[in-house]
Amino acid sequence: MNEETKTFKEEQQQTLSWPFKAWTLLSLIRTQTSLIQCITNFVSMDLMANTLLSSGASPAMIHSLQEIPDFTPNIKSLCINIGTLTPDWLPSMKSAAMVATQLGIPWVLDPVAVSASEYRMKACLELVGLKPSVIRGNASEICALGCGSKGADKVLFITSKFCTHIKGSTVYMELTIRNVQTDVSYGVRGQGVDSSHESMDAVEAAKSLARASGAIVAVSGAVDIVTDGQQVVGAHNGVAMMQRITATGCAVTALIATFVAVDPLHPLEATVSALSIFGVAGEMAMDMAKGPASLRMHLIDCLYGLDQTSVLSRVNITSI
Amino acid sequence: MNEETKTFKEEQQQTLSWPFKAWTLLSLIRTQTSLIQCITNFVSMDLMANTLLSSGASPAMIHSLQEIPDFTPNIKSLCINIGTLTPDWLPSMKSAAMVATQLGIPWVLDPVAVSASEYRMKACLELVGLKPSVIRGNASEICALGCGSKGADKVLFITSKFCTHIKGSTVYMELTIRNVQTDVSYGVRGQGVDSSHESMDAVEAAKSLARASGAIVAVSGAVDIVTDGQQVVGAHNGVAMMQRITATGCAVTALIATFVAVDPLHPLEATVSALSIFGVAGEMAMDMAKGPASLRMHLIDCLYGLDQTSVLSRVNITSI
Amino acid sequence: MNEETKTFKEEQQQTLSWPFKAWTLLSLIRTQTSLIQCITNFVSMDLMANTLLSSGASPAMIHSLQEIPDFTPNIKSLCINIGTLTPDWLPSMKSAAMVATQLGIPWVLDPVAVSASEYRMKACLELVGLKPSVIRGNASEICALGCGSKGADKVLFITSKFCTHIKGSTVYMELTIRNVQTDVSYGVRGQGVDSSHESMDAVEAAKSLARASGAIVAVSGAVDIVTDGQQVVGAHNGVAMMQRITATGCAVTALIATFVAVDPLHPLEATVSALSIFGVAGEMAMDMAKGPASLRMHLIDCLYGLDQTSVLSRVNITSI
Repeated sequence: MNEETKTFKEEQQQTLSWPFKAWTLLSLIRTQTSLIQCITNFVSMDLMANTLLSSGASPAMIHSLQEIPDFTPNIKSLCINIGTLTPDWLPSMKSAAMVATQLGIPWVLDPVAVSASEYRMKACLELVGLKPSVIRGNASEICALGCGSKGADKVLFITSKFCTHIKGSTVYMELTIRNVQTDVSYGVRGQGVDSSHESMDAVEAAKSLARASGAIVAVSGAVDIVTDGQQVVGAHNGVAMMQRITATGCAVTALIATFVAVDPLHPLEATVSALSIFGVAGEMAMDMAKGPASLRMHLIDCLYGLDQTSVLSRVNITSI
Repeated sequence: MNEETKTFKEEQQQTLSWPFKAWTLLSLIRTQTSLIQCITNFVSMDLMANTLLSSGASPAMIHSLQEIPDFTPNIKSLCINIGTLTPDWLPSMKSAAMVATQLGIPWVLDPVAVSASEYRMKACLELVGLKPSVIRGNASEICALGCGSKGADKVLFITSKFCTHIKGSTVYMELTIRNVQTDVSYGVRGQGVDSSHESMDAVEAAKSLARASGAIVAVSGAVDIVTDGQQVVGAHNGVAMMQRITATGCAVTALIATFVAVDPLHPLEATVSALSIFGVAGEMAMDMAKGPASLRMHLIDCLYGLDQTSVLSRVNITSI
Repeated sequence: MNEETKTFKEEQQQTLSWPFKAWTLLSLIRTQTSLIQCITNFVSMDLMANTLLSSGASPAMIHSLQEIPDFTPNIKSLCINIGTLTPDWLPSMKSAAMVATQLGIPWVLDPVAVSASEYRMKACLELVGLKPSVIRGNASEICALGCGSKGADKVLFITSKFCTHIKGSTVYMELTIRNVQTDVSYGVRGQGVDSSHESMDAVEAAKSLARASGAIVAVSGAVDIVTDGQQVVGAHNGVAMMQRITATGCAVTALIATFVAVDPLHPLEATVSALSIFGVAGEMAMDMAKGPASLRMHLIDCLYGLDQTSVLSRVNITSI
């Protein structure tokens, strides 16, 4: 059944069932203590490890090429993040991705600042070719990666945000995509834009990337968008200040890997559940926070302590 | 005098004297501002540096091979941690360890996830051969390293916890040691086990590793065990939630290095004191914590503020 | 107009205008969301990124040599920090510095532990030769770098503090500079010294380094000193406990880069404003802190929330 044929009642029932789905997956994570391998950037390691530990999973930041044949077959899922990519790390990323794909282990790609350079775009496209289960980025990253995956040799733009979870209505957005081959630039720039519009703009790019790659594609924004290329689902949780904490985007990508680990056959549902649960923890943390650093602390505490009542009353996922 | 010949009264007196010993060493650390070199993993650097600074020491995360001849002779102790080991870091670790051993500078090894791969085990055994003063790991790591040091070429298992300080009674433990040469697997698996049992199981492995290596061996668990191969001492401080904070195990290993720096002739006493002091800070922090992230913050604050009364009333070290 | 010719009234007016200058620059940072590239050490990445995000800037921890030609021309300023320097990182630092200097993009150098080894000193002098806009270090680092820039081939000493922001009156200071060529050692050692004395000792070294390098030179201490080689200005904000948090020195260097990004034509004013603003945030955080870890959290929260009234009433900058 695709979304066009759904009746209003069916959609309403599905929306009602999302909080139960999210709670069920979180409960599975807490009981299974899944081992999640993270090959990630230097900035995010601490917050990512603590996010996974507080969710109930076991993170392993093992990135040595020598260890992948022994170690990667034992993991439940893999998270690859290119935030501080260098040529000595790329072979490990590709090797781990290949092992995961061969063994049917789900893996998630975070194309941080993918168009900061031609080198980064090329590396990222190679990783996309190794069949990630899920790709999560912000609107700029997904638009650029979508454009890059269509064969533009040089797609360059600078994201004004690095490795952050863009939320809320006053987000500054700068997005300039330049196809150097054809010397045509097209850009979207805005400040104080309606940020629903922001991730909505990326819906078509996300659907296109999902169809081209075979991956579930998630776009973080005021509303987090998740698509398999056909169905589009939105998670409406989270708070604006999360964008002022480094590595929250990276952390939620690792949380997606954790959710996919316990429900590998339903990566779209797992992805949107992870985004919503992280957002719910952020909302509850915001009630106690006095700024980005206390928000970060409360976010992890809240993720650790999330109970069924809070999840069922707060998770807000809908069809788009 | 070995433990068999001790009278009950002598043991009781020693137990009573432990809190004074621990307080004396902490006071020395605070006045001496010892320079401690840490060659450690990327995940733990922040917490490790802050742990040492709050204890009164001066951490230096210098790992360049080029700098070791100039720098390492000036340090008071060295902490080596293989959490995110790659081939380009190993020569620095070995060089620093050799300089330290040659100059009589104490050094401490943390064999994080030692049996995650054959590569890691091999590297770790080479480091053990360079005569660390102290080795600290969790039960799984010490059991595997003990097995590896007995000559099994391939000893593979996956720890379900990565770089955490395992504490409390509901710890999930997965320990499977497989000797690939002989194709014999033996494992211990448990959930909700009596976790005293957990580190107790590792006592024989620890004693054996201590005798083989010449190092003091410490096993973190619900009770932290420390042995020189003959005497076995236990530190009964700490709280279960510390296992849900990344790098607390790594941090306490660095704290051991700091304690050994001020009492290099008594590494067993220094090691068990460090484990107990870190546990006391964790207990006091737990009174204020609402989850793992606030526990982490309060842990560092409490370590910084620890006073004599708290140390003398809370340090709980006994012969085992 | 140089400082000798200033009348008392002129100096008084300038001192009164500093808080307005600092507030104006902070306001510009918050509206411009400048992209700041940081090539820094592993220990400081998290705190540095969060400091920049809470100030309103956009940090990018991109250090791959391959990416510099595409990425660095788009940044507003660059921060280079040698805390965990290795030979594979140095070419990126030099390449980014060269691009920045060629394009007129300001860049700031943090010579962490510059005299820990001959290798580090040599690397640092090469970076100084690439024309940084600002150099910030503690007294030991600036003295050593000043000495090194005068042609001493081997200048070796060990700083007792690594990557910390030295503040307050009970700071332990160890400073021994040894010129290996001439086999002459001269040192300053003190504990509980009047710490105004501490950074004052470095004033002449700082002025000399500023004249030799063409950079603004800043020395962190109980009073932060900033000089262009002629004029000397002091920022009197901050609290002693900031030295017990790892990477506060690194973070304030990145904040200097952020301030210089919005006022590149006045790097002295931008530098002293950044030091003062960071100190003000620390003072306000100290009112709520119970130790170094809660101070760190409140510091970031306060930097994020700083309002005009607090800045105007607290910024304390004077001519020296």
